[in-house]
Amino acid sequence: MPEFLRLSHTNEALQTLLRALPEGNPSAETIETADALDRILAEDVRAPNPLPEFTRSTVDGYAVRARDTFGVSELLPGYLTLSGEVPMGTHPGFAVTPGSCALIHTGGMLPDGADAVVMIENTQMISGEVPHGRSQGGAGTTADEHTDPVPAPKIEIGRAVAEGENVLRIGEDVAADQVVLKTGKLVRPAEIGGCMALGILQLRVAIKPIIGIISSGDEVISPNECPRMGQVRDVNSYSLAALIKKAGGKPKTYGIVPDNLEMMKAVALRAINECAAVIITAGSSASSRDMTDEAISSLGLPGVLVHGVNVRPGKPTILAVCNGKAVIGLPGNPVSALVIAGLFVVPMIEKLLGLNIPHPHPYIMARLTMNVPSQAGREDWITVKLIDNEKWDKRNKDKTCFLAEPIFGKSNLIFSLSAADGLVRIPPDATGVSAGEIVEVVLI
Amino acid sequence: MPEFLRLSHTNEALQTLLRALPEGNPSAETIETADALDRILAEDVRAPNPLPEFTRSTVDGYAVRARDTFGVSELLPGYLTLSGEVPMGTHPGFAVTPGSCALIHTGGMLPDGADAVVMIENTQMISGEVPHGRSQGGAGTTADEHTDPVPAPKIEIGRAVAEGENVLRIGEDVAADQVVLKTGKLVRPAEIGGCMALGILQLRVAIKPIIGIISSGDEVISPNECPRMGQVRDVNSYSLAALIKKAGGKPKTYGIVPDNLEMMKAVALRAINECAAVIITAGSSASSRDMTDEAISSLGLPGVLVHGVNVRPGKPTILAVCNGKAVIGLPGNPVSALVIAGLFVVPMIEKLLGLNIPHPHPYIMARLTMNVPSQAGREDWITVKLIDNEKWDKRNKDKTCFLAEPIFGKSNLIFSLSAADGLVRIPPDATGVSAGEIVEVVLI
Repeated sequence: MPEFLRLSHTNEALQTLLRALPEGNPSAETIETADALDRILAEDVRAPNPLPEFTRSTVDGYAVRARDTFGVSELLPGYLTLSGEVPMGTHPGFAVTPGSCALIHTGGMLPDGADAVVMIENTQMISGEVPHGRSQGGAGTTADEHTDPVPAPKIEIGRAVAEGENVLRIGEDVAADQVVLKTGKLVRPAEIGGCMALGILQLRVAIKPIIGIISSGDEVISPNECPRMGQVRDVNSYSLAALIKKAGGKPKTYGIVPDNLEMMKAVALRAINECAAVIITAGSSASSRDMTDEAISSLGLPGVLVHGVNVRPGKPTILAVCNGKAVIGLPGNPVSALVIAGLFVVPMIEKLLGLNIPHPHPYIMARLTMNVPSQAGREDWITVKLIDNEKWDKRNKDKTCFLAEPIFGKSNLIFSLSAADGLVRIPPDATGVSAGEIVEVVLI
Repeated sequence: MPEFLRLSHTNEALQTLLRALPEGNPSAETIETADALDRILAEDVRAPNPLPEFTRSTVDGYAVRARDTFGVSELLPGYLTLSGEVPMGTHPGFAVTPGSCALIHTGGMLPDGADAVVMIENTQMISGEVPHGRSQGGAGTTADEHTDPVPAPKIEIGRAVAEGENVLRIGEDVAADQVVLKTGKLVRPAEIGGCMALGILQLRVAIKPIIGIISSGDEVISPNECPRMGQVRDVNSYSLAALIKKAGGKPKTYGIVPDNLEMMKAVALRAINECAAVIITAGSSASSRDMTDEAISSLGLPGVLVHGVNVRPGKPTILAVCNGKAVIGLPGNPVSALVIAGLFVVPMIEKLLGLNIPHPHPYIMARLTMNVPSQAGREDWITVKLIDNEKWDKRNKDKTCFLAEPIFGKSNLIFSLSAADGLVRIPPDATGVSAGEIVEVVLI
């Protein structure tokens, strides 16, 4: 009976589970960098070369020797002779000598001699045209080699620049051999881009752990069957599979086991042998939940670590580690199962993946529309709908604050969860949250 | 030159783009519900039957006629005769008559006559044992049919229940023919679960729009090539492809086009004919950006709507609609390209998918560790790292507040972005954010 359980607080329960799992590196595989989105790195990535590999301009302007601009200003401009235009994508092929400068575009390579760039806005061309003939061998060079020589134009410089100004030095982004991405990092678009910049076309990533899912209950049938009176379709195998995919795991379903201890033991044993972790959703009756506990206990040591968590929904949660693998018993109610899986299954998968902790889970701040009571001493998760209709923060005038409207009705209905945008946590030491308070809405 | 552009504010620019796109339903396809995670519904989903389909108990206890418990209390308990146990997964097969009750488990079907359930905690069995012979035909029935008749046991009821208490009525979750999920809804684990509960095994979802990506610039080479002096590897084709996947689109890359207007026009025309929208990342020089504008203008009307957005990074952004399709010109710098794609490409894809607006993008609240100056009148996005080391909210004692530490160094380096956890927006009317202020960190 749940009331005789010693209830753990959620965070304490989670830490108990995670601490009991073996440490060590996840199994890894090599995949194309372009396909690595949302995967977790299984080894450090080092830069084979510096970035950038040559000194580049960060603006459009004129490459100069900084000392040639010292002392100049808008009122007292300086004048430099234009030596040529730096073509994109190739070595300039000429140097900037004292008293001269070169037209350069953003991303262009600084000619020898130049050590800074004056932005084009701070310059003016006085006479002549750019001496195309001086820019050698560039792919973009369209110079007519037969033009008559014209006097080299002068560029008026209206602002002094310091050495290195508007310039990216070699290795300023990353140095050669630097660890640019660490083991355990989530691969996002920026990481894929960074690897491509370095020519790293493949990555070692953690293999997605296979998470077994067992549904149980005499009343549960497959969704493709037509329920007779008293029967309900299996929801948990599918909603949990989706959650596992989102968390980076690979779900493997083991079907529906009736409320029979020996059958449950047999299926659970097969699952734990084939998977990195196993989730069992109990039938909804107390006897079915007790059976789950007993079946889990048969799988190996240390066995059940937590039976009963001080949270609503989800009190009858079971957390176990059997022979080094996590086994989690979830409540049969689909809403409880999903909420509890978010609290325990997701961090467990993240640990299996070697994802760096802490991994912040994002949320939305919103203003609660009505009082929500809660029993002190218990953590509550309430379902809310977000409504976008209030401006609130005077400083950030164009930022909108959402309203969070608690979902009415019984909270254990799957379409109540579907109607919700997220969950709001009411901590154990609160007796509720008042209307008007700003709450964190964890998106589901 | 960017400084001669009339710069739009980001939100204004986005609305200009979205309003110029045609309205209407996205193309749809039918897929398995189990595979529909993160897809967008292309038509309303109706319930073929009510949920639940029979009156169910929400607790373990005794099914009763509520009026038989009226007036009872712990001090003045009532007594009911136990008629049997409701088996799970089948019709009880017997009725609860006046003065009697039935043992029932969570999820069990209420016997005829019963209209409420007394929780087991509020009852006590006085004598005898459950008359198994009275529970008919249940899959879980293990009764020995040859036991001698024993006097039916009495159950002491210590608490009155109202009609419907601890009971889910037929259709209390959803009524038959009710629209349970609306067109434009994102399919999450809860939606997959809800559909399975109703036996809805397939869904109509929006086809992922194909988004063409063109990289340009004479200095840009493929990541599998070894750059010569002045050359850089293509980053944007890959980082943007990853971002497009995350947003629900299907990227299609068109390679790298040199700074040649006719070639760019030809590739862009092919891309707009083959894709639902096209993204062009300009080479980083001003002339390359001007070429992008001209190539986009050649693709159809109304053409370029916005050239230049008042945001850093990303000022030289181009937003266009050509013959009903969005064409977005992004800055060539990989950091600017990703930040701007988050502001414009992601909402554009969401519109193509028919995703319901508003779609809240989640974030993390964090305390800024140092002053960040910003130019008034311009929206700035700064990269920050989250550090998990401060408790802040007294009421939510166990909630942790992250610190947001701005990333030092030049912000246009791809590994600065990779080192960041997220972006903080500094609105145009602010001149910066002070150390200690709470900011919203949009995760990248």
